[in-house]
Amino acid sequence: MKAAVVTGFARPLEIQDRVIPLPAAHQVLVRMEASGLCHTDIHAAAGDWPVRPDIPFVPGHEGIGIVEDKGEGVDRIHVGDRVALAWLAEACGHCDHCVSGRENLCPEQRNSGYSVDGSFSEYAVAHGDYVVKVPEGVDPLDAAPLTCAGVTTYKAVKVSGAGPGKRVLISGIGGLGHLALQYARIAGAETVAVDVTDAKLRLAHELGADHVVDARTQDVAKEVRGLGGADVAIGLAASNASLRAAYDALRRHGTLVLVALPADGRLELPVFTHVLEGKSVIGSIVGTRQDLAEVFRLHRLGRTRVIREQRRLKEVNEAFADVLAGRITARVVFDFR
Amino acid sequence: MKAAVVTGFARPLEIQDRVIPLPAAHQVLVRMEASGLCHTDIHAAAGDWPVRPDIPFVPGHEGIGIVEDKGEGVDRIHVGDRVALAWLAEACGHCDHCVSGRENLCPEQRNSGYSVDGSFSEYAVAHGDYVVKVPEGVDPLDAAPLTCAGVTTYKAVKVSGAGPGKRVLISGIGGLGHLALQYARIAGAETVAVDVTDAKLRLAHELGADHVVDARTQDVAKEVRGLGGADVAIGLAASNASLRAAYDALRRHGTLVLVALPADGRLELPVFTHVLEGKSVIGSIVGTRQDLAEVFRLHRLGRTRVIREQRRLKEVNEAFADVLAGRITARVVFDFR
Amino acid sequence: MKAAVVTGFARPLEIQDRVIPLPAAHQVLVRMEASGLCHTDIHAAAGDWPVRPDIPFVPGHEGIGIVEDKGEGVDRIHVGDRVALAWLAEACGHCDHCVSGRENLCPEQRNSGYSVDGSFSEYAVAHGDYVVKVPEGVDPLDAAPLTCAGVTTYKAVKVSGAGPGKRVLISGIGGLGHLALQYARIAGAETVAVDVTDAKLRLAHELGADHVVDARTQDVAKEVRGLGGADVAIGLAASNASLRAAYDALRRHGTLVLVALPADGRLELPVFTHVLEGKSVIGSIVGTRQDLAEVFRLHRLGRTRVIREQRRLKEVNEAFADVLAGRITARVVFDFR
Amino acid sequence: MKAAVVTGFARPLEIQDRVIPLPAAHQVLVRMEASGLCHTDIHAAAGDWPVRPDIPFVPGHEGIGIVEDKGEGVDRIHVGDRVALAWLAEACGHCDHCVSGRENLCPEQRNSGYSVDGSFSEYAVAHGDYVVKVPEGVDPLDAAPLTCAGVTTYKAVKVSGAGPGKRVLISGIGGLGHLALQYARIAGAETVAVDVTDAKLRLAHELGADHVVDARTQDVAKEVRGLGGADVAIGLAASNASLRAAYDALRRHGTLVLVALPADGRLELPVFTHVLEGKSVIGSIVGTRQDLAEVFRLHRLGRTRVIREQRRLKEVNEAFADVLAGRITARVVFDFR
Repeated sequence: MKAAVVTGFARPLEIQDRVIPLPAAHQVLVRMEASGLCHTDIHAAAGDWPVRPDIPFVPGHEGIGIVEDKGEGVDRIHVGDRVALAWLAEACGHCDHCVSGRENLCPEQRNSGYSVDGSFSEYAVAHGDYVVKVPEGVDPLDAAPLTCAGVTTYKAVKVSGAGPGKRVLISGIGGLGHLALQYARIAGAETVAVDVTDAKLRLAHELGADHVVDARTQDVAKEVRGLGGADVAIGLAASNASLRAAYDALRRHGTLVLVALPADGRLELPVFTHVLEGKSVIGSIVGTRQDLAEVFRLHRLGRTRVIREQRRLKEVNEAFADVLAGRITARVVFDFR
Repeated sequence: MKAAVVTGFARPLEIQDRVIPLPAAHQVLVRMEASGLCHTDIHAAAGDWPVRPDIPFVPGHEGIGIVEDKGEGVDRIHVGDRVALAWLAEACGHCDHCVSGRENLCPEQRNSGYSVDGSFSEYAVAHGDYVVKVPEGVDPLDAAPLTCAGVTTYKAVKVSGAGPGKRVLISGIGGLGHLALQYARIAGAETVAVDVTDAKLRLAHELGADHVVDARTQDVAKEVRGLGGADVAIGLAASNASLRAAYDALRRHGTLVLVALPADGRLELPVFTHVLEGKSVIGSIVGTRQDLAEVFRLHRLGRTRVIREQRRLKEVNEAFADVLAGRITARVVFDFR
Repeated sequence: MKAAVVTGFARPLEIQDRVIPLPAAHQVLVRMEASGLCHTDIHAAAGDWPVRPDIPFVPGHEGIGIVEDKGEGVDRIHVGDRVALAWLAEACGHCDHCVSGRENLCPEQRNSGYSVDGSFSEYAVAHGDYVVKVPEGVDPLDAAPLTCAGVTTYKAVKVSGAGPGKRVLISGIGGLGHLALQYARIAGAETVAVDVTDAKLRLAHELGADHVVDARTQDVAKEVRGLGGADVAIGLAASNASLRAAYDALRRHGTLVLVALPADGRLELPVFTHVLEGKSVIGSIVGTRQDLAEVFRLHRLGRTRVIREQRRLKEVNEAFADVLAGRITARVVFDFR
Repeated sequence: MKAAVVTGFARPLEIQDRVIPLPAAHQVLVRMEASGLCHTDIHAAAGDWPVRPDIPFVPGHEGIGIVEDKGEGVDRIHVGDRVALAWLAEACGHCDHCVSGRENLCPEQRNSGYSVDGSFSEYAVAHGDYVVKVPEGVDPLDAAPLTCAGVTTYKAVKVSGAGPGKRVLISGIGGLGHLALQYARIAGAETVAVDVTDAKLRLAHELGADHVVDARTQDVAKEVRGLGGADVAIGLAASNASLRAAYDALRRHGTLVLVALPADGRLELPVFTHVLEGKSVIGSIVGTRQDLAEVFRLHRLGRTRVIREQRRLKEVNEAFADVLAGRITARVVFDFR
């Protein structure tokens, strides 16, 4: 099978021929149909983050495919099922986070395309309890971006308290933001989209944003406060300045949800205002299997639209370059079929 | 009547003889029995904060007294009732904060001892809908500190999510902290008290703290993480360093509640950790009338103990000096009787 | 001015000529543009409920009109404003329900068209703090049904926990139900509409229900459990049997929200199942001023569609008859213009 | 090893000699130290409930013991650990309930002493992920009742919303109720204890109930409404009349949590009142592993006191008889040491 492999940080990935793995007990073997490309894959391959993956490794955590085989002890998944391989490859299952509905915070979790080989590969093995079924009628090319960009923004909207009667600012309309915008609207909120490129501002309009702010020419905090301020801001643009602007756009009792991870990301809170105005800043990281099941369910009901561009896995390095250069409006998906 | 009046910022208060005010429509006239001294009074008199009171004014927002007269339209309060005059002198009653149970965030609120004359006075008028009844059997000298130090920390504990199965760090065991510690315990939590003076650390022990950390000699974050980390930290010590340490003591999914207002208070969040560990930082300011009613109810049930020292109003400047010099373990209360 | 007056229970209303009232302190005088007809008006006029209104009285609590005059002490509302007069004519403003965001449960509340004269009248006075502003661009004929049918179902959906990833059953698609269905969808839920008339089942389809069940020919509980069961059911049809069916359609951890008030309404819970499956049954009554403001905001954003038929006030008795005979698909609105 | 075995419904249990089982993969072998006797064991042995256990079986789901051996794949538990075997022997780990922190509602769960052999046995095997560690310093004889009576009432208090400022009615002060009373108080609530025997009313006093009501001579609903009504009622007495009284004691916005399972348990809700007063009725069943960990943690902190009587396993039939005859104030624990 072909796989895109990181053989050294900050070097091009190599397309290698590897042996198709065998599923161990509790594992399934998945023949990949599609895999999204997330900025995290680029950070992983560059070794950008404090804890680095062991080299060599296969990135990818938006994998969609068909189960071809399974090991002992896998009862709920059957050969032929379409499943998703998400960032949360496995969690411990018994810590207080896992037992309390927060498996995305499990300190012992393993992650696809980081601590275990991921979905940039024609086949992959995964834990049978942690893959998530893709419902009938969901296109695998749509399912792929939903598996990380979708669930991450869905969760951020969920923890934010967004809902009818709330004004929600989405800062950054790309792979994540175009879905965040839809989830905020699905949750009933009035939406404000912020970005710095024409293509993305146009996309925000098309997706039904109630307000669109161009951060190149407009003062985000001032514009949004002019509307009455944001009850919720979702920080998806990886720059300290945009997180700051999102915070400043909050009205009293407002909540900023941090999702983006700027290099050396810092947000300085003004304590006096934070207290007097009763503000909150919450960190949110991916989502649980249940969150992903909900994301798929919304898509099957026709509530979301995934913006994506197809590539072949052998074009992985060009795709990385295109993402870094800002040439991708929303999401790249590798099509394996 | 005698009143302690601020006639200029950063000058000693003057004890003046004033005419007893008449209650207007919707107002009650209260003969003061006791009034606590809060650090906010000192900030108000010094003009420390961005929006300053108009001079001259009477500080004080922990006033307890007996209703002696009332204007038209006051039905729920009767002459002879014992009531509390809290920081929230009045709110608009119809904004989304007021209607949704967050009157403490009303942008049009008026505040006792700041935008309206407060309780450092033998008599004061107050809005009949916003004074809170003090239940039978609660000593006015106890009720006074409960009216701000109590409700503020009670609310902070409430919004923090503290409860059974949670470890709660109280940073700063003084007028506020000695009550915060009790509320955290009342809410069922395991408690960790942090301070930098022997008297306060002793007090924490006496009040039943499960763990006591001396920030002079111990690394707070390290000690608390050694216990498993704090699910909740309540930041009551007015120093950026202590807020930082409280934040660093959090475990995954932990919440820091900011209450203290250090001069030029700043808290810099590390975005990467904040996101990956799903942390929150929430600002909390005083509480509602209902929160105060709950605080009084707990005291009547014998669940709280107020630590306080009595003074006479004429000693107000000495009392300010004692607070600033750290010579007060918990709370000063002016006794008017 | 003309007003429709109840002069005796279970007798036709009389159209009387009355003097236009003068607004007292804190009151506004509203020239009515539109007033919806709610089943509660019919119950009020028939004296159906345990506590009856004092005769004579003017029904109506979905009143929309323009402020023409105001008494002393009304600052937030101005002559010329368009406002709504809802069921909650006034609440005490200081009980624990009022202070905690639940003014709809205030035991001292007064109600429009029941304990105070309502909106079936060319002019009405109302408390300046309790009328709710209608945003620019909302048609008064739409605003009327939103003022009770809207806010009541909006609140029911809110307290139900409905949201993305939830399946919500709406039992009864009429004046309330056609809005409940929209709010459930706005909140992100998968929706199941149940009714017993062709017109209403068609309406449910048109409004985008994901599933439609005809309770005349289908077993509601069985059908819905076949879909996986309802996470939430909203009981809007005033029959004990339909409340029972809605309860039986719940899946584990499901919540039934009771809204409809059948004569001698009873719901018998099977304790064993209720416990083992962790179910809930919640009562919900109208909503707060803030809920209504949110309802109007959603309509202004274009998220809701109000189905209604216009009548003149002098046709009030025919309109009552039409509602009772089931000849109205959704809502009657009296047009005063 | 000795085990108490049900060989036929409604027949005395037999003490049998059985072979000590071997732990399979993911299992631990536990040498029992203590096992509480729960009313559910009596129901199980009598075949009282709709779904009956397969005969023969060993009851018991409050088992505390020491791990003596373990199968493959058990990493978090070590030989020598003290662990608890609770009602939740195992859940699927991947349904929406399990993933969302509600494993106690998993439809595929297996239950100790019901669908798998339980703790009325000198040795038992159990799933290594589902046993809960007992902290150092907790007496196994205390830990046993906490494992079901504790966690069940702890959970009921948790879902009820009990807390400071709330009045909580505990209906039934026995094995469950004496702990419910403590948890309600630990959560900060004002407590009202109701029972019908002198011993239990005395116990309620001793455990610090703020009010005690004797349902033999007093009208529970009337007494409690005289105090202002209950914000929360926890229904632990297995009689329809006592559940009814608990419901009737609620104030507006009050919540009744159903826990007890009367034979043919029925609770008829008056729809009109339920809606107008915004009441809730919630079913609650045992708790999760995390809930049990919290229960143990509270006990280790000295916050709870377990009332119990020791017996030997061979006295199991006498113990059943004593429970049925009401001769046990709180809990029987079989001591295996």
